[in-house]
Amino acid sequence: MTDASRPDWTGRLTRVRASLAGPGLDAVVVSTPANLHYLANFTGSAGLLLVARDGGAFVIDGRYEAGVRQMLLADAMPALDVEPVARRYDLTLGEVVAKRGYARVGFEAAHVTVATLAAWQRAAAGVEWVPTYDVVEGPRRVKDAQEISIFRRGGIAMAAVAAQLPRIVRAGRTEIEVASGIEAALSEAGFSRVSFPTIVASGPNSALPHARPTTRRLGPGDLVVLDFGGVLDGYCLDLTRMAAVEPVAPQAHALYAAVRLAHGAALSAVHPGIETSAVDAAARTVLEGRGLGEAFLHATGHGLGLDIHEAPRLARADAGASERVEPGMVFTIEPGAYVTGVGGVRLEDDVLVTTDGAEVLTDAPRDLLVV
Amino acid sequence: MTDASRPDWTGRLTRVRASLAGPGLDAVVVSTPANLHYLANFTGSAGLLLVARDGGAFVIDGRYEAGVRQMLLADAMPALDVEPVARRYDLTLGEVVAKRGYARVGFEAAHVTVATLAAWQRAAAGVEWVPTYDVVEGPRRVKDAQEISIFRRGGIAMAAVAAQLPRIVRAGRTEIEVASGIEAALSEAGFSRVSFPTIVASGPNSALPHARPTTRRLGPGDLVVLDFGGVLDGYCLDLTRMAAVEPVAPQAHALYAAVRLAHGAALSAVHPGIETSAVDAAARTVLEGRGLGEAFLHATGHGLGLDIHEAPRLARADAGASERVEPGMVFTIEPGAYVTGVGGVRLEDDVLVTTDGAEVLTDAPRDLLVV
Repeated sequence: MTDASRPDWTGRLTRVRASLAGPGLDAVVVSTPANLHYLANFTGSAGLLLVARDGGAFVIDGRYEAGVRQMLLADAMPALDVEPVARRYDLTLGEVVAKRGYARVGFEAAHVTVATLAAWQRAAAGVEWVPTYDVVEGPRRVKDAQEISIFRRGGIAMAAVAAQLPRIVRAGRTEIEVASGIEAALSEAGFSRVSFPTIVASGPNSALPHARPTTRRLGPGDLVVLDFGGVLDGYCLDLTRMAAVEPVAPQAHALYAAVRLAHGAALSAVHPGIETSAVDAAARTVLEGRGLGEAFLHATGHGLGLDIHEAPRLARADAGASERVEPGMVFTIEPGAYVTGVGGVRLEDDVLVTTDGAEVLTDAPRDLLVV
Repeated sequence: MTDASRPDWTGRLTRVRASLAGPGLDAVVVSTPANLHYLANFTGSAGLLLVARDGGAFVIDGRYEAGVRQMLLADAMPALDVEPVARRYDLTLGEVVAKRGYARVGFEAAHVTVATLAAWQRAAAGVEWVPTYDVVEGPRRVKDAQEISIFRRGGIAMAAVAAQLPRIVRAGRTEIEVASGIEAALSEAGFSRVSFPTIVASGPNSALPHARPTTRRLGPGDLVVLDFGGVLDGYCLDLTRMAAVEPVAPQAHALYAAVRLAHGAALSAVHPGIETSAVDAAARTVLEGRGLGEAFLHATGHGLGLDIHEAPRLARADAGASERVEPGMVFTIEPGAYVTGVGGVRLEDDVLVTTDGAEVLTDAPRDLLVV
């Protein structure tokens, strides 16, 4: 039983170490910021975590060294050797790898750039650098007790922000003003920052799935997509609700109704063992049945965690990333439909997969907010 | 003469194209977000810009395609062919490269990951992929008329925020409360978002150059580092001012005085033709002369632009990145000294290099704010 009040660093490092044996690695270098946060409670902008079969080292520069040593003393990160960078990360990494006699060392191929790998190869002569994938992202897919506790608190806080929307969304306000009101509400609700730039997309802008807020004022007949999120204790929440300005056209009501049905169908489909592509198909089939298949321009959802977009991805089977849903996964359900001349509708919630279904973390009203 | 009201896209693309001839490239793939913003006014999260010797193509997925086509019609980005992604970026890129008959194609080695390069190699059989460096970052080092106009407005807005500090910084407030007050002032001053998470570091925390705000309350004798910045029209400003809570120890006053002298020395050193390492040395020599050489834990400055950290870097000569200062460069001057038991001091301004010296963009009082 893991402790919900504290990250399970031992369990997390153990799961990473378990992946070293297969490819015969002596160690793996973790450099992705979110992975450093996950494994070592480190939130700086640089640092290399060398996870070996037994033990490991944290290579860190002078800007962060004192902070890391304070955290180690306070038992606020896992016990790891600290290896200070004298001049350049690549050179210190090379020295540490040589000193410890590692011959085959993995690196995060989806994060390390071609230039960085070349520098590491120059700095560690004779070492075989082996590309690895998802060594930390794999374990991160399934949240542990501490993470689930944060997500439950985060979902309640997001619902509190959603409850402010009737006050914030008003005809005549600009998209930027509405976005600013939402971001103030996120801050008041306890989020340390936004998890992505808030989207407020009205009228024709609503038909663009990733519009940025503009100085356009909300006017009669507009559909308004409100897509926002906050970061709580490092973890990203993500919510979309819909508003419309009176008079609302029948086509806009119909578009909303179709997306709401698709959203409900996908939510109902979530349970352990189902393919993520089947959850996507549940939403897509509803929209296709209403002639809106082509209008659904994106995937049905994405995992949430220390990153706003992480595994799993809930997309069409032919997107090639389908996997089985597992208890402890946290992801969005967010079908949408975008029709030029009518506008766009998206509805999004965050769900936790339980042993027999899905727990909606963001339990806030989803009705079209007519203003 | 370029127009200050509009980005000089033609000039920017011409400078990138000029770098293709040397290495014999048919085209270069630009994928770094800030470089896409710079060259194509594109601010989405994905997209590949293929810049060829004559012309080019913008490979873009369904989330952004409608927005890009609207921008093209509105003349709000350079005229480029749009190549929509059918299923996956790598596959479409491979098709476009083959269709256009490119044989040698550059990529941004400092940005493209090992995994992405492998996918491009698989998708474009027979193409030779050539690592390139700073193809866009090079031109970005020297700002054009439109960028300088934004930086001047940004500097004035940052000074307006600094003028609020006496109201925001109060004994008894927590670091988080002070940071929140600063971020509200940034928003009121017209910045669209913070350029990095605001640093408010008090007492012992001030001795950590990259501390995050905590619930610690500002108390008697604290030195307080206030390091913050906003983004205006895409461009990042960055300012550090110092406060202290009465009674201020003589050692704290002395530390402030030393850093202020170092800051002045570096500012005075800036002129076209000087090495960036010599600007660093101007600040470092002052601090070394007061026994604070070891306490100056970082470089003297960094370039500003669409990224909060970009070229040039103003660091010690042995850090290996020295280059000549040129008119039109915009960078920070931010010496600091961090002494356990006393605290830390940093002073930071943003400067534009002129034809004969430096123009301080952030012209706000630098005196120690005693509260």
